[in-house]
Amino acid sequence: MTKVAIMGATGYAALELIKILLRNPDVEIVALTSRQTDAPHISAIHPCLEGRLDLRCEALSAAEIAERADFIFCALPHVASMEVIPELLADGCRVVDLSADYRLSDPAVYEKWYHHVHTDPTRLGSTVYGLPELGADKIPSANLIANPGCYTSTSILGLAPLLAAGLIDPTGIIIDAKSGVSGAGRNPKLGTLYSECNESITAYGVGTHRHTPEIEEVLTTVGGKEVNVIFTPHLTPMNRGILATMYPRLLQAASRDEILQVYRSFYEGKPFVRVIDRIPATKDVSDTNYCDISVQFSGDQLIVFSALDNLIKGAAGVAVQNFNLMSGYAETTGLIV
Amino acid sequence: MTKVAIMGATGYAALELIKILLRNPDVEIVALTSRQTDAPHISAIHPCLEGRLDLRCEALSAAEIAERADFIFCALPHVASMEVIPELLADGCRVVDLSADYRLSDPAVYEKWYHHVHTDPTRLGSTVYGLPELGADKIPSANLIANPGCYTSTSILGLAPLLAAGLIDPTGIIIDAKSGVSGAGRNPKLGTLYSECNESITAYGVGTHRHTPEIEEVLTTVGGKEVNVIFTPHLTPMNRGILATMYPRLLQAASRDEILQVYRSFYEGKPFVRVIDRIPATKDVSDTNYCDISVQFSGDQLIVFSALDNLIKGAAGVAVQNFNLMSGYAETTGLIV
Amino acid sequence: MTKVAIMGATGYAALELIKILLRNPDVEIVALTSRQTDAPHISAIHPCLEGRLDLRCEALSAAEIAERADFIFCALPHVASMEVIPELLADGCRVVDLSADYRLSDPAVYEKWYHHVHTDPTRLGSTVYGLPELGADKIPSANLIANPGCYTSTSILGLAPLLAAGLIDPTGIIIDAKSGVSGAGRNPKLGTLYSECNESITAYGVGTHRHTPEIEEVLTTVGGKEVNVIFTPHLTPMNRGILATMYPRLLQAASRDEILQVYRSFYEGKPFVRVIDRIPATKDVSDTNYCDISVQFSGDQLIVFSALDNLIKGAAGVAVQNFNLMSGYAETTGLIV
Amino acid sequence: MTKVAIMGATGYAALELIKILLRNPDVEIVALTSRQTDAPHISAIHPCLEGRLDLRCEALSAAEIAERADFIFCALPHVASMEVIPELLADGCRVVDLSADYRLSDPAVYEKWYHHVHTDPTRLGSTVYGLPELGADKIPSANLIANPGCYTSTSILGLAPLLAAGLIDPTGIIIDAKSGVSGAGRNPKLGTLYSECNESITAYGVGTHRHTPEIEEVLTTVGGKEVNVIFTPHLTPMNRGILATMYPRLLQAASRDEILQVYRSFYEGKPFVRVIDRIPATKDVSDTNYCDISVQFSGDQLIVFSALDNLIKGAAGVAVQNFNLMSGYAETTGLIV
Repeated sequence: MTKVAIMGATGYAALELIKILLRNPDVEIVALTSRQTDAPHISAIHPCLEGRLDLRCEALSAAEIAERADFIFCALPHVASMEVIPELLADGCRVVDLSADYRLSDPAVYEKWYHHVHTDPTRLGSTVYGLPELGADKIPSANLIANPGCYTSTSILGLAPLLAAGLIDPTGIIIDAKSGVSGAGRNPKLGTLYSECNESITAYGVGTHRHTPEIEEVLTTVGGKEVNVIFTPHLTPMNRGILATMYPRLLQAASRDEILQVYRSFYEGKPFVRVIDRIPATKDVSDTNYCDISVQFSGDQLIVFSALDNLIKGAAGVAVQNFNLMSGYAETTGLIV
Repeated sequence: MTKVAIMGATGYAALELIKILLRNPDVEIVALTSRQTDAPHISAIHPCLEGRLDLRCEALSAAEIAERADFIFCALPHVASMEVIPELLADGCRVVDLSADYRLSDPAVYEKWYHHVHTDPTRLGSTVYGLPELGADKIPSANLIANPGCYTSTSILGLAPLLAAGLIDPTGIIIDAKSGVSGAGRNPKLGTLYSECNESITAYGVGTHRHTPEIEEVLTTVGGKEVNVIFTPHLTPMNRGILATMYPRLLQAASRDEILQVYRSFYEGKPFVRVIDRIPATKDVSDTNYCDISVQFSGDQLIVFSALDNLIKGAAGVAVQNFNLMSGYAETTGLIV
Repeated sequence: MTKVAIMGATGYAALELIKILLRNPDVEIVALTSRQTDAPHISAIHPCLEGRLDLRCEALSAAEIAERADFIFCALPHVASMEVIPELLADGCRVVDLSADYRLSDPAVYEKWYHHVHTDPTRLGSTVYGLPELGADKIPSANLIANPGCYTSTSILGLAPLLAAGLIDPTGIIIDAKSGVSGAGRNPKLGTLYSECNESITAYGVGTHRHTPEIEEVLTTVGGKEVNVIFTPHLTPMNRGILATMYPRLLQAASRDEILQVYRSFYEGKPFVRVIDRIPATKDVSDTNYCDISVQFSGDQLIVFSALDNLIKGAAGVAVQNFNLMSGYAETTGLIV
Repeated sequence: MTKVAIMGATGYAALELIKILLRNPDVEIVALTSRQTDAPHISAIHPCLEGRLDLRCEALSAAEIAERADFIFCALPHVASMEVIPELLADGCRVVDLSADYRLSDPAVYEKWYHHVHTDPTRLGSTVYGLPELGADKIPSANLIANPGCYTSTSILGLAPLLAAGLIDPTGIIIDAKSGVSGAGRNPKLGTLYSECNESITAYGVGTHRHTPEIEEVLTTVGGKEVNVIFTPHLTPMNRGILATMYPRLLQAASRDEILQVYRSFYEGKPFVRVIDRIPATKDVSDTNYCDISVQFSGDQLIVFSALDNLIKGAAGVAVQNFNLMSGYAETTGLIV
C-alpha cells in the first residue's frame, strides 16, 4: 500500500490524477491540498468524485503532508513547487512534480523563461526528467521526477526517433501545435471563458511559450546536437487534446514506410505510443494515456503528427506512469482502461 | 444625427449594440465608457471592431457623458445603473437601461430579489418597460426605458398571447429555459470557463433567478390576473441563444391551428416575432432580432416554444428597437440584416 | 472466461461496450458484426481501439455467432434485433438486446409506436427489463434482457422513488429532457451534422418520441397506477449526456430533505445512483455509469433533476451491469473507473 | 435593379449569399435552384430565412434560369458547374462560379487534381480569378468570374504581399491551415457528424487537397516565380472560420514593423483586409467579409497569420464583392454590417 498525497488538488490535472490513482487498489490517497482555508470536501471542487473519495482539500504544510504520505504528486504552479519540494524530499517523501520547476537543467535558462530566480538550483541538472519512453532506467530509483509539459511530450515523442536516428536537421524544426482549453488551467481568466474560446481558433505565445526551452533541451540530449524549434501553440475550441503538426527537414531521402519503421523500432515495447497508419485525431487518444504518431509526405516535405490528451499522457497519466515505475507497480497500472 | 454613448462598453451586449448602431448612418457613437482607467481603444477590448470604430473606452462621469451625447445606452450592471441614470436624465439625456434597475415597479420586490435598497425608487412604476411587441405607444415619448431581460423577453413573448386571450391558467406555468453562456456575462468566473461549460448542461438559480419577478409582473399586466411561473434556467454549451419550453394549462379545448392563429393575430404587424410551424431552433434566430415562436401538443398538454438570441432580441437588439422608436427612426433600422 | 460477441459493432454504444468489456479479464470478445461485407478491422471503424482489440467486423449469421460466443450484446437497430434474437436464443446464447424490440410488453403498443408488426410477440411481456435499480432479482437467470432506452433510464430513475412512495400524481408528469448528439446514432443525417447541431438547441419528437410508452409502462409497474408523461426531448450541442428536468405534482406536502431521504432509501445499496445535494450537471457523470439525481423546489413545485451518460448508464454501461449480474461477475465489474 | 439567381441554394455558402444579397435594395433574388424535385420553400431548407425570402427551390434548367435572371451565382459542386455555365453565358447571363471549375488555367492540372476531364477547357486561362485584392481591374467587365476557394483566399492574402515584394523564398512555403466544419459542406457524411468532429482536431488531405494547385498558380502569378507550398489543412471543432499559420523563409533580414508596412502598403485602400498588430482569431472575422492578417517572429522565422470566415470572405462574401464590382455597386454593398 502506497500512501499518496496530491498538492494543488483543485486543478484539472489533479482531478485526472485522482481518477487514475483510484484504480490502483494498492494506493491510498491520504491527503489533498489547496490554499482554500475552509477545507472543502473534494466533491465540492470536483463534483464527479461524489461518492468516490471522501477527503477534504486542506491547506497543509509540507511537514504535515510528509507525516501522512510517502509519495507526493505536486500539482502546484511553478515557483510554488520549488518552495515546498526541498522540504518534502528532506522529510523522506518521493515526489513527482507536475510543474516546470525542475524540468530545465540550467537555472539561468529557467530565470530567462520563467522570470523568477530558481531557489533550488542545485537540483537542476540532476533531477530525472520523467518521460519514460526516452529511457526509463533512472526513474525507478529517483526521489524527484520532473514531469514533462503537455506540448513538450507531444512534440518530443514525435521528433525523438528522427533525431536519434540522425535523419533530420536539428535546427529550425517547425512545430505547429493545437491544444484544447483545459491546458490553460482552471483559474478564471477572460481568455479561457467559454464565449471567448468557443467558435474560434488563434495562436498565442509565439516565440515566448515556456515549453520551448524544454523541448529543445530534451531533444538536444536525444540527438546529441543542438536542437532548436519554431514552436507555435494554438488555442482550439475543445476541452482536451493536443495535436502537433511538425515539419522537420530530412537530411537524406527516406520513404514513408522506412520512417514509420524507425518509429516502430524506437517505440518497441513502449505500451503508450501507438505508431499508426492514419493521421491521428485527438478524439482517439482522449481520456487515454496513449500518444498516437504518424507521418505523411507532402511532396518532399516530411510531416509528423503527434496527438495525446494533454491532461493524461500530457500530465496526470505520465505522472502515474512515473509513479508506477518508482513504486514497483506495472507501468500500465491504472492507465489502460 | 443622434449622438450616442454606451456606458459599460466592455461586455457582450455592448459589442452587439455597437455593431447594430454602426449600421445606422444617422447615428454617431461619441463615447464609450468602462471603469478601466487606461482608456484602451475599443478594438483592444472587442478586436472584431478593428477599423470600424475609432474610440477609446474611457472612465467618464455622467456629466462628461451628458456633455457629449444625447442618447445613452446604459449597459452597466444593476445597482451601478441606478447610481448614474438620475444624473443622466437630469442632464437632459434620454436613456435605455439594459440593467434590471428600472424593470420592476415595486422597490420592495427589487430589494427582495436583488438584495439592494433601490436608490431611485420614485421612478419605479412609472418607467416604461421596453418590450415593443406588448404595446409600443409609450416608448416614443419616454426618456427612460427599462430594457427587458433576455429570459424575460423569451418567456413573455411566448406566453403573452395566451394570457391576453384568457386561454391559460395564469398560475404555475412551467418555463424550462435553456441559455447560451454569453448570458452569464464577460467577467471571468469559474462557472463560465470553457472547460466547465463545454460538454455539459445543468440547471441553476432554481426558484431564485431574478428574471422570475419580471416575467410575473409583466405577464400579470398582460393578462389582468396574477401570474406566477416555475422558472428553471439551464446553462447550455453554446455562445448564444435562448430556447424556452413552456407548459401552460389550457383552460378550454383549442386546436393547434386555433392557438397558432391567436399568436398570429397578436403579433400581426410586429416585424420581429415570427410565428412558425416547426419547432424553433436557436440557430435560426442567432445574430438576428427575431423571436421565433411555435406550439405543439403532447396529448392534451400544450407546449409553447420560444427562441431568440439573448444578446440581440434579448438585449442589444430590443434596446435599439426602443431607441429607434424613441428617436423617430424606422423600428427595424439596423436590425434586419 | 465468458466468450462475448457484439452485433452491430460500428455504433457509439458498441464502442463503449467494447471499452468496458476489455476491462474484465474474464471476458473474451470473440466476434464483432456489421453489415459491411469487406470485414474491416475494428480499429478502422473505431480508431481509438488501435492496439487494443484485434478483431475484424464481420457480416456473420446468427448461427456463426452462436458457434463462437456464449453471450451476445445485440446493438442492432430495432426490427433488425427481433429478426436475429430468436435464433440466438434457440442456439443457446444469452442475450442483452440494446434495441427497443423487447422493451414493451404489448405487441400492439410496439406496432403503434414503431410502425412495424412485432415478429416475436410471444416474448413480449415475459422478457426481463434490464434496469437493475428497479429490482435485479430476475436478471441473473434471464436468457434475454431488454436493455432500457437512454431517456428512459434517466426519467425512470428520477421518478420511480416518488411513484413507489405514492408521493406524486402519476398523470401529466412533465419531463423536459436534454440529450447530447451521440444519442441520435452514427448514421450520417443532415440533422446530426456538426454545423447543424453546434450553437443550437431545439426540441424534437414532441408527443411522438418512442421512449414515451417505455417510460410509462415501467413507471406504471413501479407505482401500481397508470402513469402518463409529457415527454419533450431536446437536442443539445454536446457529444454525451442526458439531463432530465421533471415537474411532478406532489400529492402531499413534503420538505426537500424528506424527499431526498425517500430517494436515498430507495437507492440504498445501489452502486450507480448518486442522490446528491447540488443540481446535477451532465459533465459530472460523463464517461461513467452513474446516474446523479437531486430535487429542488420552486415555490411549491417540486423539480427533479436526473443526469447520466446516454452511452454508458443509458446504454452500454447498464448492458454490462446486466451482463455482470447474468454471468455472476460483481455488478460493478468494468464499470467504476 | 439586378435580377439574381442562385444555383445550388441548399448549401451553407448559398445561405450566406442570400443573406448578403437581401441587404442590397437594388437586387432582386428571382430564382433558387436545387435538384430537389418537390420544390420546397427556401425556409424549409434554411429556416432562418423564414419571412425574409418567399421563393421555392426549384429544379430549373439553365434556359429557365436565364429567362428569369441576369446574374447567376453558381454554388453547384465542381463538374456540375461546368455542365451548366457555358449555356448560361450563351444565354447572356453573367456568372460568379463558386466551384473550382474555372479557377485553374490548365485543363491537365484540373484533371490531375479533380479526376475529371474538363468539358469547357477553352475558358480555362482566360476566366478572371475573382480575388479583388490582387487586382480588381478585370473584374468589372468580366462575364464569368472564378470565385476563389476558402483556404486559397486565406493563404494567398497572407502571402501575396511578401511574394510581390520578393521578400520570401517562393518554394516550400509551409501553410498549416485550420478550418471550421462548414467548409466540408452540407451533405451528410460520417466525417462531419457532430459526434465525430466535436472535441477533436485532425489533419486531412495532406499532399492531396485541391486548393493546393490554386494557391500555387495564383501566387506564382503574383510573385513572378514558381511557387510551391506544403499545405496541411486541419478540421477544427467550430462552425466557421479559417486560420492559416504560414512559415515562409525570408530572403533578407527585415523587422516585423518593416514587414507589416509591406502588408499595409499592399492592401492600402482595400476595405476587407485588416493588417493588425495582434495575432488574428477566427471569431473576430466570423460573419464578416474581413481577412485579418498579422506577422510574428519566432527567432528568425517569420510566421504569417491570416484569418477569415470561410463562408463569407472565403465564399459568399467575396462572390458578392465580385458581383458588386461587375454590377457597378459599391464594392462594400451588403458586406459591412
